[in-house]
Amino acid sequence: MTSLLSRIDRPQDLHSLSEDELQAVAQEVRELLIDTVGEIGGHFGANLGTCEIAVAVHSLIDSPKDKVLWDVGHQAYPHKILTGRRDRLSTIRQYGGLAPFCARFESEHDIMGAGHASTSIGYAVGIKEAMLRGATEDGKVVAVIGDGSMTGGVAFEAVSQAGGLGTPIVVILNDNGMSISPNVGALSRYMNRVRLDPGLWEAREGVEEKLTRLPAGIGAAFERLGPRLKESVKAIWAPGLWWEELDWAYLGVVDGHDVRAMRRALKTAFEAERPVVIHCATVKGKGFAPAEDGGLEGMEKWHAAKPKSISQRMPAPSRPSSTPAPPQYTQVFGEALVRECERDERVIGITAAMNSGTGLSILQKAMPDRYFDVGIAEQQAVLFAAGAALSGMRPVAAIYSTFLQRAFDQIVHDVCLQNLPVTFCMDRSGLVGDDGPTHHGAFDIAYLRPLPNMTLMAPRDEAMLVHMLHTALQIDGPSALRYPRGAGVGVELPETPELIPVGTGEILREGERVALIGYGSGVGKALGAADLLTERGMDVTVADARFCKPLDKLLLASLAESHDLLVTIEEGVLQGGFGTAVWESFAEEGAVAPRLLRVGLPDEYVTHGAPALLHEEVGFTAEAIAARVEAAVLDRLGV
Amino acid sequence: MTSLLSRIDRPQDLHSLSEDELQAVAQEVRELLIDTVGEIGGHFGANLGTCEIAVAVHSLIDSPKDKVLWDVGHQAYPHKILTGRRDRLSTIRQYGGLAPFCARFESEHDIMGAGHASTSIGYAVGIKEAMLRGATEDGKVVAVIGDGSMTGGVAFEAVSQAGGLGTPIVVILNDNGMSISPNVGALSRYMNRVRLDPGLWEAREGVEEKLTRLPAGIGAAFERLGPRLKESVKAIWAPGLWWEELDWAYLGVVDGHDVRAMRRALKTAFEAERPVVIHCATVKGKGFAPAEDGGLEGMEKWHAAKPKSISQRMPAPSRPSSTPAPPQYTQVFGEALVRECERDERVIGITAAMNSGTGLSILQKAMPDRYFDVGIAEQQAVLFAAGAALSGMRPVAAIYSTFLQRAFDQIVHDVCLQNLPVTFCMDRSGLVGDDGPTHHGAFDIAYLRPLPNMTLMAPRDEAMLVHMLHTALQIDGPSALRYPRGAGVGVELPETPELIPVGTGEILREGERVALIGYGSGVGKALGAADLLTERGMDVTVADARFCKPLDKLLLASLAESHDLLVTIEEGVLQGGFGTAVWESFAEEGAVAPRLLRVGLPDEYVTHGAPALLHEEVGFTAEAIAARVEAAVLDRLGV
Repeated sequence: MTSLLSRIDRPQDLHSLSEDELQAVAQEVRELLIDTVGEIGGHFGANLGTCEIAVAVHSLIDSPKDKVLWDVGHQAYPHKILTGRRDRLSTIRQYGGLAPFCARFESEHDIMGAGHASTSIGYAVGIKEAMLRGATEDGKVVAVIGDGSMTGGVAFEAVSQAGGLGTPIVVILNDNGMSISPNVGALSRYMNRVRLDPGLWEAREGVEEKLTRLPAGIGAAFERLGPRLKESVKAIWAPGLWWEELDWAYLGVVDGHDVRAMRRALKTAFEAERPVVIHCATVKGKGFAPAEDGGLEGMEKWHAAKPKSISQRMPAPSRPSSTPAPPQYTQVFGEALVRECERDERVIGITAAMNSGTGLSILQKAMPDRYFDVGIAEQQAVLFAAGAALSGMRPVAAIYSTFLQRAFDQIVHDVCLQNLPVTFCMDRSGLVGDDGPTHHGAFDIAYLRPLPNMTLMAPRDEAMLVHMLHTALQIDGPSALRYPRGAGVGVELPETPELIPVGTGEILREGERVALIGYGSGVGKALGAADLLTERGMDVTVADARFCKPLDKLLLASLAESHDLLVTIEEGVLQGGFGTAVWESFAEEGAVAPRLLRVGLPDEYVTHGAPALLHEEVGFTAEAIAARVEAAVLDRLGV
Repeated sequence: MTSLLSRIDRPQDLHSLSEDELQAVAQEVRELLIDTVGEIGGHFGANLGTCEIAVAVHSLIDSPKDKVLWDVGHQAYPHKILTGRRDRLSTIRQYGGLAPFCARFESEHDIMGAGHASTSIGYAVGIKEAMLRGATEDGKVVAVIGDGSMTGGVAFEAVSQAGGLGTPIVVILNDNGMSISPNVGALSRYMNRVRLDPGLWEAREGVEEKLTRLPAGIGAAFERLGPRLKESVKAIWAPGLWWEELDWAYLGVVDGHDVRAMRRALKTAFEAERPVVIHCATVKGKGFAPAEDGGLEGMEKWHAAKPKSISQRMPAPSRPSSTPAPPQYTQVFGEALVRECERDERVIGITAAMNSGTGLSILQKAMPDRYFDVGIAEQQAVLFAAGAALSGMRPVAAIYSTFLQRAFDQIVHDVCLQNLPVTFCMDRSGLVGDDGPTHHGAFDIAYLRPLPNMTLMAPRDEAMLVHMLHTALQIDGPSALRYPRGAGVGVELPETPELIPVGTGEILREGERVALIGYGSGVGKALGAADLLTERGMDVTVADARFCKPLDKLLLASLAESHDLLVTIEEGVLQGGFGTAVWESFAEEGAVAPRLLRVGLPDEYVTHGAPALLHEEVGFTAEAIAARVEAAVLDRLGV
């Protein structure tokens, strides 16, 4: 049998297929995903759940004149397959290959770029209102959003605006009962009630029909009960009242794996002249038995897959190396937090749907009463932490660097201005690799350093992470730690954490003329560069700044005094970053600052790919640093 | 008759009063507000609406063991009056006086500090969960939030978390149908439907009773219709289904000006062991005829009052000066935007419930179809703008500097990373004066400058604002303008706006040895300082940088070449700010940077008070700058 999918080079090629053929195409997309992602790794579970949605939508719209927006984008692989990128799927998440999420610079069919959740409805309202004003050709606008993303406040803001304006967009609520972790919060419980109740799987017409078939006496009784009764009775069968109160039309629950049913719902929705939500139930990991059969845990395990893991049915393959690998920062943090919680009953851990990604799953297992997951709701994670801190607790908010941006105002206004002891632990600081520009933690030094009362630090290795977490919890005000994605450097972990005096750095290696001052992951690069420079006959000093705010001014002054050139090394943007902070510490009242060379990330969004390749690209390697130091010494010091 | 209020020195003094007396106290609070705020100015309308709420709550709780949180805080004057600050009310918003919002450093009864909306529920959840874990003495937790604040996404995130956890907190939804401007969006329309329908003003018990009194035959028919009917019938009378779907108990609608009714609702709510919302209807401006009788417009006009305006019944008194005052930046911006919209049909204006505060009310009146107010929902304002920009429009998002912090992630991820032509117009940049630290626009330079693709500029006067808005709209990428609260400097406005070449500054005055380089409102200070220095025999150069990103490197290099000292002047925090940017432009590859003195805001939250006093306090005056320049010249240049 020839493959139908091989004939789909553009989404319009779906238009001529029958519904049976479309259903078959969706299954072929699924098989291609299992084969390809199984080989190369990537987001897996969510994409298996959207094969039929992608086929149904593209069979009815004319992309890119009509627009389909994929929230977060890690459910968009089927969309990529159907929009001319089938043959490049095997390059996804790899350097130079397809982007892991929708990327508007990659394809005209990727309407918006997105790696952060909850943005699609907001975009859709803006796009459609612009169309209505003739800014661009009018067309259908569909946003596909997961139930997990719906908990993000901005999604709600968009629902409220669209309902208020009556903007005729269609939202497909792709409800699989999961974000990366099982969902939390009342909204997802509401959706679950609706989704899991088989009695609710009836269309609106059914309700209307039932009402008209009631015995006459009851109809009269209804009249006496008031004119709004009919509407209220709908609520029995029609579960969309929450949406309808916000002036959305609701269609559901639809089987999101039934192309015919999805198409019927979409056609109805496109007829409406107001916002419509199609609530469809899907299965994360659909069609892949180890995920489907594993229940919630199975789905979480298979959210993303490592290369080869699928053919081997092993979601987290152990490393092939024979020597034991250093533990991940994530794991070290999770275990250290449990020990802090044991030591101090005021300590709690808070995350925003990054349960295993931040290591808080370890706390959840060990001390569930001290663990809070607010769902995809970073702002609320920080407000909750502020409230708990007000009541004498020592909350630790574990949120990736890039996602903490969502809570910037809460950090400014509700934590720093109130001077509350909340500790932010930012995993995934610096370049995260495959997930690319939406996920790189490039800005946190720059956006947190201007905030009064804030203490900023970054561990150079996993042992220092343990010490710094302990230190942060003793500070009577806000503090933040940043550390990279991936494994530590392989040092021994301390039995007992030590207090690091706030605002002190440390000299790791004594040399002359040039002092390399690392911050966080920059320290490792500094040591590597120093080794290379030693080989080339240049013995440089290496220091670990440890704190970015407050800085160790004494140490810096003494380094400046005894060296011709200071070199700062940080895995963050240079504008307003750590290196700039070092300069600022010398810049009082027009004083002459020492010569300073800053190494960090460039003023541009860095692409996706293996971290080593990205570090190479931006010059964040020991070799590149050594070369720049040599050049600066030759140029500037006249050697 | 002796005043009851004069005997209320602490909130517990209310506990012994009868309900009639409590009602009378509330009226006395109202009269004190009219008298005092009428004399000195301040937030007016919202506070007149909360007199009975404050009395009812404090009559039933034991503050601060029990906690009442006032969202935004500009509805909290009655609370301040009742919690020992009655005699200081006349100092409110003044330098050294009571803070304009709740401030936790001012009183143990101000549980959280807040000037930004939508935070109270989130705090309340954190506080109560901490209490439940023994972090502090257990007590009641009440959050009072306006209907306008409910549209903010973070409020929704908090509702969802509280519903999910079942946290027993009480939210008083103070529904006056207004934020500062009339509310927009579907959520407020939903609340309006509920609030304005007199048939809904019945308590839950009434519903239950009605159901039991139905004729027998109907009861049987109900049985046939399924077990969930009873619940659904509740929806006829009980309008809180939106809340109940989120696992909140709903009480309402209650007359928020009836102390007895409010107390009854509160007592019921305190009995519940889960989150409860009391939906109460209030009148903004209650008890003050010019506001009450003026409809929505009257309420908006009287949101805040100028000194003496109340006794004179004039909400916006003209200035007493005989010479015409320069126009406000806000007004110049609004009018310039209308002209840009006339000139270019792609231009639209977007705000987030800052209609008149940003000047967008002018656009709304002139071209309502090009105007969008998303409500208190800054994140959605930016996503909407991104979507519109994707569709070929040129959106202008007019949001105060401090509130734009809410949308930081959308700026990073949805505008800058996508490189979309969205223009941010940040009114209220720098120190805003009376509104204090929650409202100062201190951070925008620091948080926007690290973002790739962003163009940053700041006009030195109202004419330049017109030129820069025009310039920004020609840039094929994100741009942002900052300008201060208040009046321009009095220059003539241009007939036709000019394009300012991006990344170019301008020399305003040629001098020697010292170059003062201003940015935005810093230019005026530079010119003033130059005048003073001239009087003292020092002719300095003055330049207007105009752009902070990209910087005019040629101009800076030439100034550095011909001067011994560069002085940067900006109304923003120094860390990572404009002055630092100037240094960074010299700092490539360890080059020797020129001597640089940076003038800006300190690394602390600045208090409230008249701008001139605050500028004095932080040294942002021509005199202070001149003195620092003189000292630097004497110290460093050996003169």
